[in-house]
Amino acid sequence: MKRLTGSAKVISAILAQEYAAYAKTQDNFDDIVAEIIKNVRKDGDKALTSYAKQFDNMSIETFEVSRETIDQAFEEIDPEVLVALKNAKRNIESYHKHQVEPGFVDAKTDGVVRGQLVLPIEKVGVYVPGGTAAYPSSVLMNVLPAKIAGVPEIYMVTPPQEKFNPAILVAAALSGVTKIFQVGGAQAIAALAYGTASIPKVDKITGPGNIFVATAKKQVFGQVGIDMIAGPSEIGVIADQSANATYVAADLLSQAEHDRLARAILVTNSVRLADEVDLALEAQLQTLPREAIARESIETNGRTIITESVEEMFELMNELAPEHLEVAMDDAISYLPKIKNAGSIFLGHYTSEPIGDYYAGTNHVLPTSGTARFYSALGVYDFVKRSQFTYYSQDAVITAAKDITKLAYSEGLQAHARAIEIREGVNVDD
Amino acid sequence: MKRLTGSAKVISAILAQEYAAYAKTQDNFDDIVAEIIKNVRKDGDKALTSYAKQFDNMSIETFEVSRETIDQAFEEIDPEVLVALKNAKRNIESYHKHQVEPGFVDAKTDGVVRGQLVLPIEKVGVYVPGGTAAYPSSVLMNVLPAKIAGVPEIYMVTPPQEKFNPAILVAAALSGVTKIFQVGGAQAIAALAYGTASIPKVDKITGPGNIFVATAKKQVFGQVGIDMIAGPSEIGVIADQSANATYVAADLLSQAEHDRLARAILVTNSVRLADEVDLALEAQLQTLPREAIARESIETNGRTIITESVEEMFELMNELAPEHLEVAMDDAISYLPKIKNAGSIFLGHYTSEPIGDYYAGTNHVLPTSGTARFYSALGVYDFVKRSQFTYYSQDAVITAAKDITKLAYSEGLQAHARAIEIREGVNVDD
Repeated sequence: MKRLTGSAKVISAILAQEYAAYAKTQDNFDDIVAEIIKNVRKDGDKALTSYAKQFDNMSIETFEVSRETIDQAFEEIDPEVLVALKNAKRNIESYHKHQVEPGFVDAKTDGVVRGQLVLPIEKVGVYVPGGTAAYPSSVLMNVLPAKIAGVPEIYMVTPPQEKFNPAILVAAALSGVTKIFQVGGAQAIAALAYGTASIPKVDKITGPGNIFVATAKKQVFGQVGIDMIAGPSEIGVIADQSANATYVAADLLSQAEHDRLARAILVTNSVRLADEVDLALEAQLQTLPREAIARESIETNGRTIITESVEEMFELMNELAPEHLEVAMDDAISYLPKIKNAGSIFLGHYTSEPIGDYYAGTNHVLPTSGTARFYSALGVYDFVKRSQFTYYSQDAVITAAKDITKLAYSEGLQAHARAIEIREGVNVDD
Repeated sequence: MKRLTGSAKVISAILAQEYAAYAKTQDNFDDIVAEIIKNVRKDGDKALTSYAKQFDNMSIETFEVSRETIDQAFEEIDPEVLVALKNAKRNIESYHKHQVEPGFVDAKTDGVVRGQLVLPIEKVGVYVPGGTAAYPSSVLMNVLPAKIAGVPEIYMVTPPQEKFNPAILVAAALSGVTKIFQVGGAQAIAALAYGTASIPKVDKITGPGNIFVATAKKQVFGQVGIDMIAGPSEIGVIADQSANATYVAADLLSQAEHDRLARAILVTNSVRLADEVDLALEAQLQTLPREAIARESIETNGRTIITESVEEMFELMNELAPEHLEVAMDDAISYLPKIKNAGSIFLGHYTSEPIGDYYAGTNHVLPTSGTARFYSALGVYDFVKRSQFTYYSQDAVITAAKDITKLAYSEGLQAHARAIEIREGVNVDD
């Protein structure tokens, strides 16, 4: 991989420029997508049928995927994949249940009760891509947190296909999706945002998709909530001389195989390890079925950064704020306090990043492109709203009236002050 | 106010159309703002100085507001306003401290540790408008949750002025802002998003602003996190025959005086109350200093909706998902379980909405235009990231290997499977 040296600030600035350059290469489909959304709002199901013909070459009369089709998928799925999905589901549930918030109430002042209700979002739509990008694991990762949040209606949309991947339908059924609709692309996002006769209007849309889906999500944002717009996948590995170069190379490749644009970044204070990882990468690439993609990712976007010290390794990685962060060091847990920005952290020589993609139960929908500085993994907290409530008794209003009206008048908002003064018993001249 | 009757679905559809029509009337400053951002990225402080001259007619050499200027503000502030700000601060802190999340760890499976760290965002920028829209209460509402989240660096930006409102500087100092910079408009947002020699680059930007500020926030979104883009303020009041029409009218006007576009909506099952509220509105409007604004808001955007039943009142309000919701009914708390969507709820005849704007301690930065269906009040949770961490021992990987590799192969991601298989001791053919 290309090597970089220098201070954390310099290197992170170089990488930030590379991110920005990538963003500029993205094609712009704003106008096409705006037109699709407009047509779906105007013509509803008729537009969806027409786009299914145009984009998917399918004649769709009924959008809802039938109970029979889903039952059939359970017949067809590899029984070992079914077991693995069930085990993954169990782990995702046990992890995400810790994220359930109870709300609170505060009743410490006479006549005053304040609190926060945590309410599930009422209707959620989950987009699931078709074809080779159809990942049953992503169905679990998107739907289960919503389910645990208590969302009563969860609608999955996926492009119409001659034959659905049975694992996708099984994952949807296992996670408790309310209904599955065969509609894809920007038109599916428009249908979820505005509703049609067949597709319910939802409050929030999550799930990955191609550039049309991502653009549509941006355009309907505000009308409905959306999750993050994901960039290419990234892995950052912090490794010292205690690391196993073969393991590190394998983990870097597990991200690199996703996409030519995926980024694998090794930060180490050991030149020897960096050399060994390069050799191991080459050896492993040669037998990888997705070699072409992984090689382009490693050669174009992969970086090895050599630092002087352990402190610098973490300083640099905090500037990068990677989606996935492996700490391939002995006693990895002792470095947890040094980590400020990372979507998901994998500690120690055996905690290979794919464990998190499929199985550990932590979420694999993660902030990319440095947005882990301010974003978090998808979680139960993304499927709730926190509603404040307040009760003031007459006496409590009388007590607080002077302060409230002072502030209101100082901001020139007289009607605010009057709403307090007009209450019986309030006399701010006291 | 204009009256509407009909089912919850019909009325909410009418109001949604009105929102959409409003959104279309917004001027578009995308190109102007993009140009400003480009110039700030290119020329840094030089661009900021030039825009201060152009837009604020001020010659600014030093952007940071000095310690002396802030000390001076404490000399100048009305002592009663200072007391009120301190009391408001105490209440905001005691409410928001309940929102601090401890994170969690799960260590129930042999060799497996999973958990979630809750880490403060490292650098936050808060925009504070200048002139008559400068609200010290908003400074407290934006800064204190960040402070309680543990954000170490909080930078406030506000347009340069011959003379700052002392209450703004005092509120900033009381809430623990790190530094205050005199820079406003889209150029301030650009400076916070990308950094200049004087202004630090931050990770997230919050705070209200005019259309230039809002447009700039949208454009830098992704580069940094942002809070919600607020629409006009709204209040929904649910009232029955037990309500006091004078109080209800005063509370509706407290929102109406904000802005000609503000929306006040009364939902009631009592025609008599609706009539009385109309009379009280007219009486109170006639002596209101901001009568022109409030009258236009009430006459253009105000609505009275008459329903048949209590159930319908709540059903309708849940469709509207108002920013502020008052329940002006006896035993108001008993209706809390009926509320599904509302930013901030005010219970009972004495809990006037301005109590929440200034004093109760709940946040007044709230989701508008129906976005309370999926958004929450600004809170401590907006200033943290949740970082997942995972540790698997060698034995734990060996145990999980079969399921993980099954799923990886089923998704066609061989490098994912190999990263597991390559670990010593793993044999998936067992």
